[in-house]
Amino acid sequence: MFMFEKPHGMRDTLPGLYETKKKVRSSLTEVMSLWGYQFMETPTLEFYDTVGVQSAILDQQLFKLLDQEGQTLVLRPDMTAPIARVAASKLHKENHPLRVGYAANVYRAQEREGGRPAEFEQIGVELIGDGTTSADAEVIALAIFSLRNAGLTSFKISIGHVGIADALFMEVVGNEERAHVLRRFLYEKNYVGYREHVKALNLSSIDKSRLLELLELRGGVETCSQAMTLVDSEKGKNAISELEALWETLGDYGCTNDVKLDLSMVSHMSYYTGILFEIYAENVGFPIGNGGRYDQLLGHFDFPAPATGFGIRIDRLLEALNPEEMQEKMDVVIFSTKQRAEAIKFAEEERCKGRKVVVQDLSGIENIDQMTKSFQKVTYFIGARKEEQHG
Amino acid sequence: MFMFEKPHGMRDTLPGLYETKKKVRSSLTEVMSLWGYQFMETPTLEFYDTVGVQSAILDQQLFKLLDQEGQTLVLRPDMTAPIARVAASKLHKENHPLRVGYAANVYRAQEREGGRPAEFEQIGVELIGDGTTSADAEVIALAIFSLRNAGLTSFKISIGHVGIADALFMEVVGNEERAHVLRRFLYEKNYVGYREHVKALNLSSIDKSRLLELLELRGGVETCSQAMTLVDSEKGKNAISELEALWETLGDYGCTNDVKLDLSMVSHMSYYTGILFEIYAENVGFPIGNGGRYDQLLGHFDFPAPATGFGIRIDRLLEALNPEEMQEKMDVVIFSTKQRAEAIKFAEEERCKGRKVVVQDLSGIENIDQMTKSFQKVTYFIGARKEEQHG
Repeated sequence: MFMFEKPHGMRDTLPGLYETKKKVRSSLTEVMSLWGYQFMETPTLEFYDTVGVQSAILDQQLFKLLDQEGQTLVLRPDMTAPIARVAASKLHKENHPLRVGYAANVYRAQEREGGRPAEFEQIGVELIGDGTTSADAEVIALAIFSLRNAGLTSFKISIGHVGIADALFMEVVGNEERAHVLRRFLYEKNYVGYREHVKALNLSSIDKSRLLELLELRGGVETCSQAMTLVDSEKGKNAISELEALWETLGDYGCTNDVKLDLSMVSHMSYYTGILFEIYAENVGFPIGNGGRYDQLLGHFDFPAPATGFGIRIDRLLEALNPEEMQEKMDVVIFSTKQRAEAIKFAEEERCKGRKVVVQDLSGIENIDQMTKSFQKVTYFIGARKEEQHG
Repeated sequence: MFMFEKPHGMRDTLPGLYETKKKVRSSLTEVMSLWGYQFMETPTLEFYDTVGVQSAILDQQLFKLLDQEGQTLVLRPDMTAPIARVAASKLHKENHPLRVGYAANVYRAQEREGGRPAEFEQIGVELIGDGTTSADAEVIALAIFSLRNAGLTSFKISIGHVGIADALFMEVVGNEERAHVLRRFLYEKNYVGYREHVKALNLSSIDKSRLLELLELRGGVETCSQAMTLVDSEKGKNAISELEALWETLGDYGCTNDVKLDLSMVSHMSYYTGILFEIYAENVGFPIGNGGRYDQLLGHFDFPAPATGFGIRIDRLLEALNPEEMQEKMDVVIFSTKQRAEAIKFAEEERCKGRKVVVQDLSGIENIDQMTKSFQKVTYFIGARKEEQHG
């Protein structure tokens, strides 16, 4: 192994990208703070039996290790489950609803072939203890306002509701096992596979076209009226009404141009329990963020409460923004021993004006021509005189 | 296991502490940036065989896990070794000397009994490629300026040089094995043990008092002249001269009141190779930071270069600062459906003025009396009228 190798999927963030990331991060968190979300941090390591099991991430994607007592730990795969743990243990006396924000690295073990990052930063919020559609609308609007503040112009949020496909599938195929197969195709966005599977099912042609029609329910609020004719059960119709109410509230936020409905959206592992959404930016192949309502999770931490939220992946957002990396120009002050005190004093004065200034002993420089050329202004305190040079 | 348990040594950072920490962090990093240090981030996981082995942290304190190919990974125990890896692999074409900063969590497995954190944030710098005493003085002065900017008033930096004890021990006890035993007592700051061990050694009484005198060499620059009479070898005398030059340079930074010399300071595992230091704050039992020169580390990454730096533990710095936790007062706007649009508009106007404003659907509130009392200003958009209430 070469000494400079890194584990699979692990990345360094060099200074240019670091500053860009910092700027984008604060443009998101600034809006979240103004909307009353309070930020917190949770540990990198959690127990597998608590946060690991309850997270929305597949088991094979978890980084696991054993602690000194032989218990299995995981590197947190998301922030939603850890925040649920904190809400249940420490915040349950606070006044609900709780609004919590985070900006944290999460960890997903990756196949060697994937080339995907195994550690990446997510920035997001959780709104805990409010089961209204207003809460769903709030987090979606907040995602939109945050992304706008980060300078993202071309993006769309696809919004669905797990209750629609759930209702339709139970009405048509009649049992959870068969519904699960259909749901899986949709979750993987394998629409060709879904169509073929539906065609091969032992169903009436009317039922088959009902299942196929689900794929067409994409667009504005008008898709809700179409959906009303597709599902019969009260549960299904309630889900559609929720989406209609959501659309109306998003109108009050001035956000309906940034969203579209996709009624074929489903959740894996029954994690989401209501409205759910994915954020797409132009030129990025994967969602740059996602979220939704998860009313069951808090109950697993002995603190039953409705909840909704979202997370944005900063690496994918940066891909969408494609900003020029911030390369800061700095000044350098180069001294020989005799004028050291003057050089230090001069640099400190410049710093007080907000300039970034390196103070460098001449004898610590190997190649002065190469060294100085990356600086904007070079000031020499060498020998008896002070001299300035502008790059 | 209770669902809200966390692994041993792992901590949550709730909103009040989160904001305080953020403020202290940026007061440190602000100064480091002004001094021309560029920040970077490295992965949480590194190979044991590279960064794990080369870090200054004891093997039993490393969190280890296996990746999918069966290679041993570690959670980074410090930032110095990862930055050395990056400097060797990616930055070696940059113009030296390199000035790198970091603010990152590091991980140390702890005994169950210890009660010490197993994850904590370190903020620090590395100055790579400059072997001069000016570089040592720069990082010490930077530590002082950063801590001052964070509001810390009562602190002292103890400075030593590994070359002094090394020289004295070789002169007196003659071999590395016996020197190692003496060094270990000093590293553990077990001065009683050191004295007893020295007394029991088969040495002349003159040699014994030389070894004991080392413990007395604490104070200002005058200890250097005392030390000159204690060690005979050129190596030892050079080490003392370095400290004298360092003291003089720190004078140019106006920092001599913040430092003291402790010539009995030693390094464990030969990690530090020259000047080294520990930062002590009033009322905190452990050093809040430490640093020193490590001229061997970069060579292990096939990139031989001198280097010096320091890291400050933000948890211990916060203990020293003991600040009041920032509890932000926020406003809340409570609405019923009819006035939702007005409520959203009003809140957005308030946020534009910099106010933090929660928008809350009345029907999402369980107990309105309890809910509203934590807010500074409550504005109702309920029924037909808007009403304001100041808390």
